[in-house]
Amino acid sequence: MKLYVAPRAPNPRRVQMFLIEKGIRDIEQVNVDLNANEHKASRFRQKSPLARIPVLELDDGRMLSETRAICTWLEGHVPTPNLMGVDADERAFIEMADRRMEWYFMLPLAQAIRHTHPGLAPLEQPQVPEFGQSQLPKAMETAAWLDAELQRHEWVAGDRFTIADITAFCTVEFARLMRFKPAESGLHALQAWRDRVAARPSAQ
Amino acid sequence: MKLYVAPRAPNPRRVQMFLIEKGIRDIEQVNVDLNANEHKASRFRQKSPLARIPVLELDDGRMLSETRAICTWLEGHVPTPNLMGVDADERAFIEMADRRMEWYFMLPLAQAIRHTHPGLAPLEQPQVPEFGQSQLPKAMETAAWLDAELQRHEWVAGDRFTIADITAFCTVEFARLMRFKPAESGLHALQAWRDRVAARPSAQ
Repeated sequence: MKLYVAPRAPNPRRVQMFLIEKGIRDIEQVNVDLNANEHKASRFRQKSPLARIPVLELDDGRMLSETRAICTWLEGHVPTPNLMGVDADERAFIEMADRRMEWYFMLPLAQAIRHTHPGLAPLEQPQVPEFGQSQLPKAMETAAWLDAELQRHEWVAGDRFTIADITAFCTVEFARLMRFKPAESGLHALQAWRDRVAARPSAQ
Repeated sequence: MKLYVAPRAPNPRRVQMFLIEKGIRDIEQVNVDLNANEHKASRFRQKSPLARIPVLELDDGRMLSETRAICTWLEGHVPTPNLMGVDADERAFIEMADRRMEWYFMLPLAQAIRHTHPGLAPLEQPQVPEFGQSQLPKAMETAAWLDAELQRHEWVAGDRFTIADITAFCTVEFARLMRFKPAESGLHALQAWRDRVAARPSAQ
């Protein structure tokens, strides 16, 4: 198997952390040069027709893209430690937590970065700075809500580490591009959680 | 159980179609008035802290939000007909197809509508029309890709009807607000697929 990734991109990082948490070490990783638009070249589009990374190339030649879908496949391939729920009930509640992180934290934050950061101009056309600026407060609203949640339970989806922690952690780390540090915004539970995740081998 | 929905909103409609496809009829549906900001009132935020619909209130009092997470729970509750995959391998590939519809079709289309349509101003603040206008071509790129896919297989995820068809159908129907009709854009396979889905009882 091969995993197509890109350095510093948050979505490939989610799969890379998931692999380390699972103890999966037998997947070759191949870098795709986003700044050179390698992901939009016809050769890569044969693997990922909508030009997205990450992509997992399976041993039978099938190509699986979409971060969470790749994790679903890996969870079936290596069931322990469980990161996405042991039955449909738990899978649903962890999916809820993970989607909240994706849609209301990572998405507005990524849009804030992609529409305002000069370094992202090659990837986001057209950049609309007014839109980007409007999205950061939305991400920070979710950060404040998450901080309150993490005062009540240790991990994003409840009492154990799950895929939702990986999504949230990759978001907080991506937010460093906007000079975001939870403690400096008074979000001390979020900072303490971030530091707990950062200490895990998968975050190194 | 109760399902909190809103008339004409595409995400509640996805769950409503899913229920009918599953033959589930014992869930009471409760309308939430988005235009009156009922979803942002503290009473509703006790059910959905981030003010999103739909929400499924379970018999044990737990609240499950996020469209796809609700569907995951329902799939576990009523396994047949299967709409999300019978094992982890199939679940992953259907999730890939569903996410492509969510992230690259429904999201840019919804943003085009929310940032340009006067009727959506109460829900999207600030509206940034320049951003909205930039998103319609991205949704149409995905529509063209999907049209090509549907020339090769009958349904969005392959050879059978799945949750990805529901997501794509609710997107195409939502796109009528932008006067989008696939056939008028030369997307005849997409139109034929849309008409096949529209003929199902779940689409009525």
